[in-house]
Amino acid sequence: MYKVDLNCDMGESFALYELGNDEEMMKYITSANIACGFHAGDPQVMRRTVELAKEYGVGIGAHPGFPDLLGFGRRYMTCTAQEVKDYITYQTGALREFARAAKVDIQHCKPHGALFMKAMEDREIARAVLEAIHDVNPETIVFAFNNSEVWEEANKMGIPVALETYSDREHTESGSIVLTRKGQAIKDYDEMAQRVVRMVKEGKVITHDGKEASVKAQTVCIHGDTPGAPDLAKAIVHALKANDVEIVPVREIV
Amino acid sequence: MYKVDLNCDMGESFALYELGNDEEMMKYITSANIACGFHAGDPQVMRRTVELAKEYGVGIGAHPGFPDLLGFGRRYMTCTAQEVKDYITYQTGALREFARAAKVDIQHCKPHGALFMKAMEDREIARAVLEAIHDVNPETIVFAFNNSEVWEEANKMGIPVALETYSDREHTESGSIVLTRKGQAIKDYDEMAQRVVRMVKEGKVITHDGKEASVKAQTVCIHGDTPGAPDLAKAIVHALKANDVEIVPVREIV
Amino acid sequence: MYKVDLNCDMGESFALYELGNDEEMMKYITSANIACGFHAGDPQVMRRTVELAKEYGVGIGAHPGFPDLLGFGRRYMTCTAQEVKDYITYQTGALREFARAAKVDIQHCKPHGALFMKAMEDREIARAVLEAIHDVNPETIVFAFNNSEVWEEANKMGIPVALETYSDREHTESGSIVLTRKGQAIKDYDEMAQRVVRMVKEGKVITHDGKEASVKAQTVCIHGDTPGAPDLAKAIVHALKANDVEIVPVREIV
Amino acid sequence: MYKVDLNCDMGESFALYELGNDEEMMKYITSANIACGFHAGDPQVMRRTVELAKEYGVGIGAHPGFPDLLGFGRRYMTCTAQEVKDYITYQTGALREFARAAKVDIQHCKPHGALFMKAMEDREIARAVLEAIHDVNPETIVFAFNNSEVWEEANKMGIPVALETYSDREHTESGSIVLTRKGQAIKDYDEMAQRVVRMVKEGKVITHDGKEASVKAQTVCIHGDTPGAPDLAKAIVHALKANDVEIVPVREIV
Repeated sequence: MYKVDLNCDMGESFALYELGNDEEMMKYITSANIACGFHAGDPQVMRRTVELAKEYGVGIGAHPGFPDLLGFGRRYMTCTAQEVKDYITYQTGALREFARAAKVDIQHCKPHGALFMKAMEDREIARAVLEAIHDVNPETIVFAFNNSEVWEEANKMGIPVALETYSDREHTESGSIVLTRKGQAIKDYDEMAQRVVRMVKEGKVITHDGKEASVKAQTVCIHGDTPGAPDLAKAIVHALKANDVEIVPVREIV
Repeated sequence: MYKVDLNCDMGESFALYELGNDEEMMKYITSANIACGFHAGDPQVMRRTVELAKEYGVGIGAHPGFPDLLGFGRRYMTCTAQEVKDYITYQTGALREFARAAKVDIQHCKPHGALFMKAMEDREIARAVLEAIHDVNPETIVFAFNNSEVWEEANKMGIPVALETYSDREHTESGSIVLTRKGQAIKDYDEMAQRVVRMVKEGKVITHDGKEASVKAQTVCIHGDTPGAPDLAKAIVHALKANDVEIVPVREIV
Repeated sequence: MYKVDLNCDMGESFALYELGNDEEMMKYITSANIACGFHAGDPQVMRRTVELAKEYGVGIGAHPGFPDLLGFGRRYMTCTAQEVKDYITYQTGALREFARAAKVDIQHCKPHGALFMKAMEDREIARAVLEAIHDVNPETIVFAFNNSEVWEEANKMGIPVALETYSDREHTESGSIVLTRKGQAIKDYDEMAQRVVRMVKEGKVITHDGKEASVKAQTVCIHGDTPGAPDLAKAIVHALKANDVEIVPVREIV
Repeated sequence: MYKVDLNCDMGESFALYELGNDEEMMKYITSANIACGFHAGDPQVMRRTVELAKEYGVGIGAHPGFPDLLGFGRRYMTCTAQEVKDYITYQTGALREFARAAKVDIQHCKPHGALFMKAMEDREIARAVLEAIHDVNPETIVFAFNNSEVWEEANKMGIPVALETYSDREHTESGSIVLTRKGQAIKDYDEMAQRVVRMVKEGKVITHDGKEASVKAQTVCIHGDTPGAPDLAKAIVHALKANDVEIVPVREIV
């Protein structure tokens, strides 16, 4: 039987500012990537989001980013590998403490935005991310594109990786995605849901320039700040179930 | 036999900026209060300071502060108890992750500056600090003044407290200290060292206004950014040893 | 004929986060208090808000706050008067440069949140705010409560003051307001609009505890982040016009 | 007669942290590039540094950087041109307000670190910097390498440029410099001073890889955080005077 994890970036509110519809999304997803205060999120938001994930039985993941609140972590910064490693350690630790206070632990780590994209293609940064995770808990699952540097290095280091595709972003032929600064409104939920079913069951997706590419979808991301995200999530859950795909936290897949 | 712990605020450098002489101070102290990035410190500095403490066999403590880098955490902020609790959780977690990466753990927690002073006198804030610690690890030792709200609440909650006095700050009659924005230069190391010996062995100190007050010194703080701090530390260690006081990490005392 | 200025806190979005409905509010108000990046706002938001105010012919004011993004400037910080003065200078200058780039200048200054409240009741802080304004342009109008320290000191220093009341906050008998962390939803727009008319024409308001107090309303604040704010603004404009009150930028009143 | 300006990055202290020896350097230089709070500096430091520059008759310049306090502005961030423009406007305005409060104005603008280097080689970013300056005061002098994008675009836009070389950094053949994260200790002050004399009078320098390159030095930078900086400055002033080069603020050269 086919299995897939649905993940969503969560806890990206900050101070008075609200972003996304976390509680609504928790109903559909199985893994939450929780921002850790560098690109978004703050201690209050982190605590509430951890508690929410626990309440809905959703796997908790760290979602560390570059220290760039002004740019929402979507701008690449020329940090050294050591700096990246220390930033991941700091942010993951902060989140883990909230998890521990709620008597749960961290299931996975998915770096955010520009840091995620950089780690996928730069071996040194990929290793920095993986070492930060590995030094504290080598069983934490790291999210990555297929064939990325994170995927390759994680395999060498024996760290579990979950291969990720996106429900609401365009893919490139290599299995990467097209990073945009703002989420685009979703047009046709059912079409997008069918695209997810095809990625999971057939391992295929139509790229942003109309080609067919092979993908491997162990976890599928739905961005919570995309307008209409809960409806998209609902449509995806419905389509996956209708196609006999089981939706489970990523630790039951990898 | 008399025993005392010597503690020092550490890891208060930030980015290119260096503050204190951490490596030199590590030679004399037994417990390090390591800044966690809110009032001082950054991920690189935290990692290096944890490694340094480990190397010198010094107990590692979290030194969380108000989110006030501009004011070095020395300005009081009217945060709610919940905000304070979450700030402590966040900062302690970040530090603990660096400790875990170095295969050690956190021994104690000493809030910084205005947050420390506030916690001593405000029951709600005292409880917030203690709950943040207790929720994750009830055996972590919290530093406090004798008879302070932290001391009283910790006793009620069953959390271990270490009573702290200061080598380089003036005490008030109630056992509190006079908080200043900048450290004052040390004049007479031997006189200050004798003052420490008397606090430890006799439980007495002359206050800032010339009275004699009772104190209980389980741990004595030496500020690392006070000019001449390593010399003061050396003089204190010398005087304590000459007076048959054993200097040990606070976990061996409380 | 009666005249009044309607002001609104503006430019309080930050990075991806949107707060308030600035463009809609610009249609009704005559003075905009624009956040300067310390409690809210960022350089992009500041530029866009200045341009918007210019487009709608709305007077531009600096809205400086404590350096507390996490607390939205609603937490009091024990800054020195010199620190406050420098924070005001910094923020006002940043905003003025955007104004100058748009070929306009700053009409007024209204400190934000906890800084505003503190300045009203603390003479030293009041003077710090006023000196920061005065040193660069003594003709800038400062917003204040009647009989507040800012009002008294501004009169001594010869700095123009605009007396402010609130459409959407409860007043105390002394002419101050009840500061809350989050705006409350507005229930009855017409009733609130009538309250504004009465404040302007009769100089009276019913306080939060049911008493009648005297007020002097040269400028009336409508908070843009209060849910329903544009409808409230519309109702106020309608009621004022229906009662022959002219709505003009504050520089035409003070 | 030969003329040259000596400039130094100033006001890069932050909170309690002190960097450089600003007062000592003011005795030797003629133009101060004052940090504006994004990569270093804070409102207190900015005010004090402006007052110090005024006291010593040193030209005041804005020294804006990327919003990267953790990295001291030495890490490149993939900001859009509009973001860069707004960051320059914000920072320059904040500094200008301190200058205006001290009854002086801004003479020049020299972006900091990674932002400076990026502007030199990227036309869009170069234009963003220049437009930010030009929109408010087209007579402000911008510092640039010869033949850089800033130099070329400034010439097209009619903005005055001062060509800059470095006393304490290695030059490349194209006239750029080798950017390092930390300043290196200075070995031979007199040799470095002679290098400056040669750059000014002969327009030649030996590059980091031993070649001879042509340079044009209208202003020469001495980094204040380089250990021994005041002694280097003194040696340069001495050598320039001994070689009949007049040292004047850059506005008297460009």
